Amino acid sequence: MERKQVAVIVGAGPGLGCALAQRFGKASMHVAMARRHAGRLDALAAECSGINHAARAYECDATDEGAVARLFEQVGRELGEPDLVVYNAGSILHRSILETEAAEFEQAWRTGCLGGFLVGRAAARAMMQRIGRGGPGGTILFTGATASLRGGAGFHGFAVAKFGLRALAQSMARELQPKGIHVAHIVIDGRIRPPEVVEHPGETPDESMLDPHAIAEVYYQLHTQPRSAWTQELDLRPSSERF
Amino acid sequence: MERKQVAVIVGAGPGLGCALAQRFGKASMHVAMARRHAGRLDALAAECSGINHAARAYECDATDEGAVARLFEQVGRELGEPDLVVYNAGSILHRSILETEAAEFEQAWRTGCLGGFLVGRAAARAMMQRIGRGGPGGTILFTGATASLRGGAGFHGFAVAKFGLRALAQSMARELQPKGIHVAHIVIDGRIRPPEVVEHPGETPDESMLDPHAIAEVYYQLHTQPRSAWTQELDLRPSSERF
Amino acid sequence: MERKQVAVIVGAGPGLGCALAQRFGKASMHVAMARRHAGRLDALAAECSGINHAARAYECDATDEGAVARLFEQVGRELGEPDLVVYNAGSILHRSILETEAAEFEQAWRTGCLGGFLVGRAAARAMMQRIGRGGPGGTILFTGATASLRGGAGFHGFAVAKFGLRALAQSMARELQPKGIHVAHIVIDGRIRPPEVVEHPGETPDESMLDPHAIAEVYYQLHTQPRSAWTQELDLRPSSERF
Amino acid sequence: MERKQVAVIVGAGPGLGCALAQRFGKASMHVAMARRHAGRLDALAAECSGINHAARAYECDATDEGAVARLFEQVGRELGEPDLVVYNAGSILHRSILETEAAEFEQAWRTGCLGGFLVGRAAARAMMQRIGRGGPGGTILFTGATASLRGGAGFHGFAVAKFGLRALAQSMARELQPKGIHVAHIVIDGRIRPPEVVEHPGETPDESMLDPHAIAEVYYQLHTQPRSAWTQELDLRPSSERF
Repeated sequence: MERKQVAVIVGAGPGLGCALAQRFGKASMHVAMARRHAGRLDALAAECSGINHAARAYECDATDEGAVARLFEQVGRELGEPDLVVYNAGSILHRSILETEAAEFEQAWRTGCLGGFLVGRAAARAMMQRIGRGGPGGTILFTGATASLRGGAGFHGFAVAKFGLRALAQSMARELQPKGIHVAHIVIDGRIRPPEVVEHPGETPDESMLDPHAIAEVYYQLHTQPRSAWTQELDLRPSSERF
Repeated sequence: MERKQVAVIVGAGPGLGCALAQRFGKASMHVAMARRHAGRLDALAAECSGINHAARAYECDATDEGAVARLFEQVGRELGEPDLVVYNAGSILHRSILETEAAEFEQAWRTGCLGGFLVGRAAARAMMQRIGRGGPGGTILFTGATASLRGGAGFHGFAVAKFGLRALAQSMARELQPKGIHVAHIVIDGRIRPPEVVEHPGETPDESMLDPHAIAEVYYQLHTQPRSAWTQELDLRPSSERF
Repeated sequence: MERKQVAVIVGAGPGLGCALAQRFGKASMHVAMARRHAGRLDALAAECSGINHAARAYECDATDEGAVARLFEQVGRELGEPDLVVYNAGSILHRSILETEAAEFEQAWRTGCLGGFLVGRAAARAMMQRIGRGGPGGTILFTGATASLRGGAGFHGFAVAKFGLRALAQSMARELQPKGIHVAHIVIDGRIRPPEVVEHPGETPDESMLDPHAIAEVYYQLHTQPRSAWTQELDLRPSSERF
Repeated sequence: MERKQVAVIVGAGPGLGCALAQRFGKASMHVAMARRHAGRLDALAAECSGINHAARAYECDATDEGAVARLFEQVGRELGEPDLVVYNAGSILHRSILETEAAEFEQAWRTGCLGGFLVGRAAARAMMQRIGRGGPGGTILFTGATASLRGGAGFHGFAVAKFGLRALAQSMARELQPKGIHVAHIVIDGRIRPPEVVEHPGETPDESMLDPHAIAEVYYQLHTQPRSAWTQELDLRPSSERF
């Protein structure tokens, strides 16, 4: 029987995180959803599971080195070695440079970038171990934003984190791709449709926001790219988005 | 019975062009393959057809405005209105700036960029007409290269054409996407495996070159992206490629 | 007595071209101003000359290979070998992709990019000849625009030319800088104050437009950079410009 | 008597920092040199002073919010309000992602980017106060590197810091330039000649490294740009540097 692949989504909320869990589950992968606040974890995992696949929820503060180590250890034990790891955490900060507190500036970077390093490194280590044993590599995906490419007025905190995450993805790709680990960065340029916006059959969906399921499809496609043609970066935006 | 979609590939050679034809044919699309030299056209179309789909070959010099108009008129009559148009023509020019002839510099631009304008405009016009009648939009894809983003020493002729094609794709996306036409640019960063390199079952394929079928899969995925999450640009390279 | 340096400005109009002529003249350079229409040439040269320096005006269609060769031959004979060559020609084209004529699209590229190739090549050849005789190198500057980096809706014609000119500058820099020729590209992101806007002493100048004399200062600074620290690209915009 | 301008250089070592101090001093500015280690501070200030200008040295850990506040308070009291502030700190980190410690990754960001935020914010606050009183604005310059634009293999720590610093400079420019504060980012693409490399008259200088005095000239030129034509970003590299 073929081994089921394992996907780990860090920063898994009810929007994109849930859509990713559903897409990976549909592909018969084991799915670990990790997020900081444990409160709704089980409800979330339940909602994001499908008929034939059950997502598992884990509590993890991605900016805490020990917590990230524990997450990968626990997932490895319970689900298996990771084949696909997504870093999806981050929080927008918008404030005048004159009024930005050092603590909030630093926190934006810890959530948006340091966590990406800790998760990316843990993923790379796990994947390299398996490669060292002659096993397959894996995929590491980072969620970017408009601010990954453009530092808007008042968005210095967010842009510093997102430019940094993009730098991390690029450097990791250059180091790890020749070894068999695919590292890609997805620039999401627009607002993701929140889960409370329910689509009714027959109604025209709101196309000014990104459908999280459409994004999830792209993440899955990136994971399935063969080694001879890997994408390092792509953008995604609604057709109506000015850019 | 559902209407079959129509794909037009301009600059369709035995490598990527053929792989695109096969992928689109597999998706039950009608496929028109257009290239400048008619010589091997029929043989090419035959080779690139599958069991249940027949690609048709057309002769067309993409840098000739009249020829492009005739191509779209003829394809429209024979296969139907285009849903997906790929501009894949271009030729590498590498020579010292001191020794580059004006004629070859200009020719590199005509093939690599002016043709893209003529084909892109014809595609946009055909698609806008259908949109005006309440019909669906379509997809226009442009094939880029390393030289789309970087002007290397001696590559001024190629880079001028490829930077220009990228500018065209960006401008067209900004104008046409809100109207329902998806325009994307694919940066192929590496060498595509030529058709004469035959893979034998059981042998490890040469992963230092891009597999044209892997590229074709990405073109098809771009075409199927829903309006709420369109990619404007992505790159593709072998895992072993330094970048 | 020290040899006076020679500057050649191609695409020299009454705005930036005139300011460049004045700045280079102030630095005791011989100045050749070349433009397509001979009509106001002498008046222009007179206006752009200073007390101690006389600019000379030349008629030259920069998109005509023979005319460019004659210009460099004539300037070489009358003023001396060029030390600094500026390509400043180009014309904005803004039109829907659906309505753009092939002829105007091509013309935008010929003026904005092909002319840059012809002038840049002539400059490089002249400078390399002198370097071959053990003489000094020189500087080649290209005037870019917002559209050098961004293809706006309806600006495909202009952006194709300007992206292309940027590719040319980059490629030429990579080939020629190790040989001693400095090649730089200046992205002018905003509107240059037209000559008919007269500033009155005591009035606050309109700072929403670029002062051509401020731009000219930067071009001159680029020319005087020593070999150990050359700029390949910089941008210039008014403090009030959104970007 | 005209007020002398005040320049503050943070991260002022014996290389570029010293050259900047000398250039600003030559322009009759008061110069404050700040660096983390006080050890050689006085010797450094003495070396970097000229005949008619004395640089003052200050101890300041730029990653310490309180220390930065004290620096600006002390400089304001002793020399006057800052007209030009340069952030020049940063340290290269090169290590496999698999072996990078979280602490060193974070430290690279604190030195290369958080310090830039703390210093940039302090500079912006001081300059905005003066603008609020009807006074002149000022200039804030950030020193970038090759890694500001490209995340090389093993350079994730350095690139995250430098991409972030670039994001900060861009965001600050967009917020502050309309208010009268010029914010620019200088990409130094190559190695700066260390102070121990002495040039002897008559010898050909090593042109494969950037002369710190040539860089300092560019920083000073950026400071003197008028409001109608401000540069936000430029690169600097030796003519021999491959890029």
